[in-house]
Amino acid sequence: MALGVSALPFTYVVHLLGIVAIILVLVWNLYFRGGLAWNSSNKALIFNIHPVLIIIGLIVSGGEAIISYKALPLKKEVKKLIHLVLHAIALILGIVGIYTAFKYHNESGIANLYSLHSWLGIGVIVLYGIQWIYGFVIFFFPGGTPDIRRYSLPWHVLFGLFVYVLAVGTAALGFLEKLTFLENSGLAKYGSEALLVNFTAVITVLFGAFVVLSAVSDAPPAADDYEAI
Amino acid sequence: MALGVSALPFTYVVHLLGIVAIILVLVWNLYFRGGLAWNSSNKALIFNIHPVLIIIGLIVSGGEAIISYKALPLKKEVKKLIHLVLHAIALILGIVGIYTAFKYHNESGIANLYSLHSWLGIGVIVLYGIQWIYGFVIFFFPGGTPDIRRYSLPWHVLFGLFVYVLAVGTAALGFLEKLTFLENSGLAKYGSEALLVNFTAVITVLFGAFVVLSAVSDAPPAADDYEAI
Repeated sequence: MALGVSALPFTYVVHLLGIVAIILVLVWNLYFRGGLAWNSSNKALIFNIHPVLIIIGLIVSGGEAIISYKALPLKKEVKKLIHLVLHAIALILGIVGIYTAFKYHNESGIANLYSLHSWLGIGVIVLYGIQWIYGFVIFFFPGGTPDIRRYSLPWHVLFGLFVYVLAVGTAALGFLEKLTFLENSGLAKYGSEALLVNFTAVITVLFGAFVVLSAVSDAPPAADDYEAI
Repeated sequence: MALGVSALPFTYVVHLLGIVAIILVLVWNLYFRGGLAWNSSNKALIFNIHPVLIIIGLIVSGGEAIISYKALPLKKEVKKLIHLVLHAIALILGIVGIYTAFKYHNESGIANLYSLHSWLGIGVIVLYGIQWIYGFVIFFFPGGTPDIRRYSLPWHVLFGLFVYVLAVGTAALGFLEKLTFLENSGLAKYGSEALLVNFTAVITVLFGAFVVLSAVSDAPPAADDYEAI
């Protein structure tokens, strides 16, 4: 029951929404929240690194990694390498992004790991890491037997999409959680910052939806397909 | 790229997780939150109807509606009717559930529609309604042409799964939002109620994951398939 449509137009929407999401999260944290800092007496600036790295890393790089097979007119082996490297970037930025949340909590005396966002976030990064290592070992180096690859591939795709959708959902939880804290501290519920944060979350969810739509649509023929001609 | 496995075992997990989710949301609202009421001077009891109806309706009935083609050894036309009726129950309980949130807000002087949860919730119920009406008209009565049905079906499945995943994500946002309000009002962050709510949200997410897994796995042969024998 395939959709029977080309993924390519959807991948353009993914790129566009990804750029918008990154711009919005930067406007939020640089303009409204006072900027980013690895070390500062203003601990809020340490926290601000968290959403920026998660959006650029796990969400946008991760999404681009997923659609790389659908968006690029390159040889299969090249696309596989791009898929692997983009997911590695997503994973590393995700780990550093999660670390900054702990760093902020620890330096500010805030409890760790009590919220649904944090629980699911830890789940996402662990599953993302397992999925990356499995993909590396089975599909890249040293590589599984043809039988294992053939049997694994649909599960690799399905589990990868599950972890990705969970990452997007966890990001939405994060936007809501942070905005709720800010509103409890007096931020206007219908003010420009509140609308910006909710709008960024909606764009993030749409980005995820178009990544999945690209992934389940038809890939262009790989450059290898023409080699024999 | 099919998974090549039977959906049936996954549908048992769906039923089990659905029962657990309903029990947990009832324990939360009846035992910890003081019960349910349509009219009360204690406005919190009006709100409590909201999560109960959303979980029983949109999430569990909606999920069971999705997997009805994979879980039941019945004729195709019977399964279609069950699919339609369960989704109608999900939609009606969802609408009443959303109404109770507005009723609670209005009677308590709380602003409406400022949070990401509310924005996505309105989006979910509108898309759910559109999807139900489209399904009814094209696949049930009066029914589209065979060409329209054939072309529509994969999009009906994909869009339905998108709306469903969005509903599960929005439910998770709701659990986090309500728990954050309660914690801001003094509820212990690592207390039994906080753990119960987060655990209920995790079960809800797992329920949604197994619904999708059932939907993309292989259906048992319809009872009709044996008729000619």
